[in-house]
Amino acid sequence: MGQSLINHKWVYVARPESEVGYEHYEMQREEMTDDLSANQVLIANQYLSVDPYMRIQQAASHTWEEPHPLNSLQQSGVIGKILASASSKFKPGDWVNAYTGWEKFSKVSANELVKLDPTDIPVTTSLGILGMPGRTAWFGLIEAGKPKPGETLVVSGASGAVGSLVVQFAKKIGCKVIAFAGSDEKCRWLEKSLGADLAINYKHFNCYRELQSFLEEKRIDVDVYFDNVGGMISDAVIPLISLHARVVICGQMSQYNGMLDEVQLGPRFLHHILYKRATIQGILARDFSHRMEEMVEIVGPWVKEGSIVYQESIVHGFEKMPEHLASLFDRGSSGKLLVRIGDEY
Amino acid sequence: MGQSLINHKWVYVARPESEVGYEHYEMQREEMTDDLSANQVLIANQYLSVDPYMRIQQAASHTWEEPHPLNSLQQSGVIGKILASASSKFKPGDWVNAYTGWEKFSKVSANELVKLDPTDIPVTTSLGILGMPGRTAWFGLIEAGKPKPGETLVVSGASGAVGSLVVQFAKKIGCKVIAFAGSDEKCRWLEKSLGADLAINYKHFNCYRELQSFLEEKRIDVDVYFDNVGGMISDAVIPLISLHARVVICGQMSQYNGMLDEVQLGPRFLHHILYKRATIQGILARDFSHRMEEMVEIVGPWVKEGSIVYQESIVHGFEKMPEHLASLFDRGSSGKLLVRIGDEY
Repeated sequence: MGQSLINHKWVYVARPESEVGYEHYEMQREEMTDDLSANQVLIANQYLSVDPYMRIQQAASHTWEEPHPLNSLQQSGVIGKILASASSKFKPGDWVNAYTGWEKFSKVSANELVKLDPTDIPVTTSLGILGMPGRTAWFGLIEAGKPKPGETLVVSGASGAVGSLVVQFAKKIGCKVIAFAGSDEKCRWLEKSLGADLAINYKHFNCYRELQSFLEEKRIDVDVYFDNVGGMISDAVIPLISLHARVVICGQMSQYNGMLDEVQLGPRFLHHILYKRATIQGILARDFSHRMEEMVEIVGPWVKEGSIVYQESIVHGFEKMPEHLASLFDRGSSGKLLVRIGDEY
Repeated sequence: MGQSLINHKWVYVARPESEVGYEHYEMQREEMTDDLSANQVLIANQYLSVDPYMRIQQAASHTWEEPHPLNSLQQSGVIGKILASASSKFKPGDWVNAYTGWEKFSKVSANELVKLDPTDIPVTTSLGILGMPGRTAWFGLIEAGKPKPGETLVVSGASGAVGSLVVQFAKKIGCKVIAFAGSDEKCRWLEKSLGADLAINYKHFNCYRELQSFLEEKRIDVDVYFDNVGGMISDAVIPLISLHARVVICGQMSQYNGMLDEVQLGPRFLHHILYKRATIQGILARDFSHRMEEMVEIVGPWVKEGSIVYQESIVHGFEKMPEHLASLFDRGSSGKLLVRIGDEY
């Protein structure tokens, strides 16, 4: 105790108007001690999360209750190892999942931590399939999408952390799955490894009408549309919904870079919702936080038995955090994107 | 029996590309006898219905299961008096509600008729507050809107057959009601006669941003948005939804004239549905046909005791049926629009 550490933290300092980048962050260096108050632990972060929702929180208004505060640590999920503990529940060396931020070390109250057992299941799953993205995919699909065996489910952003799980959960339920992604390589992966019945690279289409014609030719009637992307894909898919279709709005990634405060135009579509007596429902991971165990009980065994593919894209470089975040909106990821920082301190 | 009658009927012959008008109809003259098969009745129609949904059915594709067939009688609800009956359940002079079409006489199987008692309640209510519009307003509001006392409900097309009931039902439930209509006169009626807390003539605003600013200044948070109109009003209202808001799509009248086959652009808004975890649900009267009695049991007594205003706009002129229909999209109606034809044969 009383030892001094140098912490590095990424502080969010300016609201992006379009793409997020280094200009919206400052890396700050801060001395900290390992002194702990009662029940506190000191964590050396090993993996930091970058997630699309972070870009939404950066918009100035009309999003969540409050935008991410300026001049404060960029909040994120992390996986860390305990360096020092003033809690009887944790000892140095324990792996934990926490919600702190983009920093090398964090001090956290023990009751905000979830202990991870690396001998049971890889710790990284707690930020992916058995964490927030898994919860979003599972409850978004089950509670809002309500898929039934034999139905056709369309998912946009299908190669991402949430989308890649939706594809597989829907296949397990017995749906026909049409998956959208932004590269031929991702499409091959979606069909060959994840079992999508058809994967479509939307970048091969110049406009939504072309894409819609393609889907019409394939006679695709959409019972469930799980939307992570919005924009052109939704423009093409929504007119093809079937009677009583369910549209799940889980993300609108095509809109996050610059269109949250300055809206983009798209074809009006609410009349389709009328004719088909369909529903559109927005869902966020936080709505299902209290049901985390329920999800882990169902999905955990699938992970252990290997009947589900949980791709992780692990990149390195704490000094590149803003770039890692921006990459989600630029080229996307296959599965969950994590930043490994543990070897660097 | 064996007597000959001259029937006149409006036959739908061409799909409108924008406004509907005379060019899409032909009035045909047809001889008919009063010969009836078993259980059939002959009705002299007294009131014909014109409803916004008729314009939707005229679009070529992507609406309901099937568009209204060309070269056939324009279907509609009617109120008639029985001229001749081969059914033990009906006798000449009885008032009935039927779904036939724009014609002076109809032959209908007795089991497709609802008998009306003009001494109990005005027969015209069966095409309005105690008919399809009433059912749409009641179940759309209760089942999809789920309003709670103290919540703010916004309704577009508030002076129409459905909207004028939504305003009053929502007030009975204890909501604060913001009502949109297209003239100052209608707005006065909405506030003074129907009890709307605020009625807004959307024509006073040049664009949705102006309207949105106005609503923001009034600090309107929208818990339920009951939408009959779409377009600019929705553009202004949807960004102001509150957490877990419910959007009911009951109509999209601004889109019916020419924008069903050729889509109009509007600002994208699905991200708001995401942040607020809101739902959008399309509803049609037919979804609640089987629950008609349930509605009549609740709303019927309100009608009899006079605690609800059911405005009817009654126009004349069988020879002007296409014009009556078109008027719904042009100047709208106050309450339910009915065409009285009974004095004319």
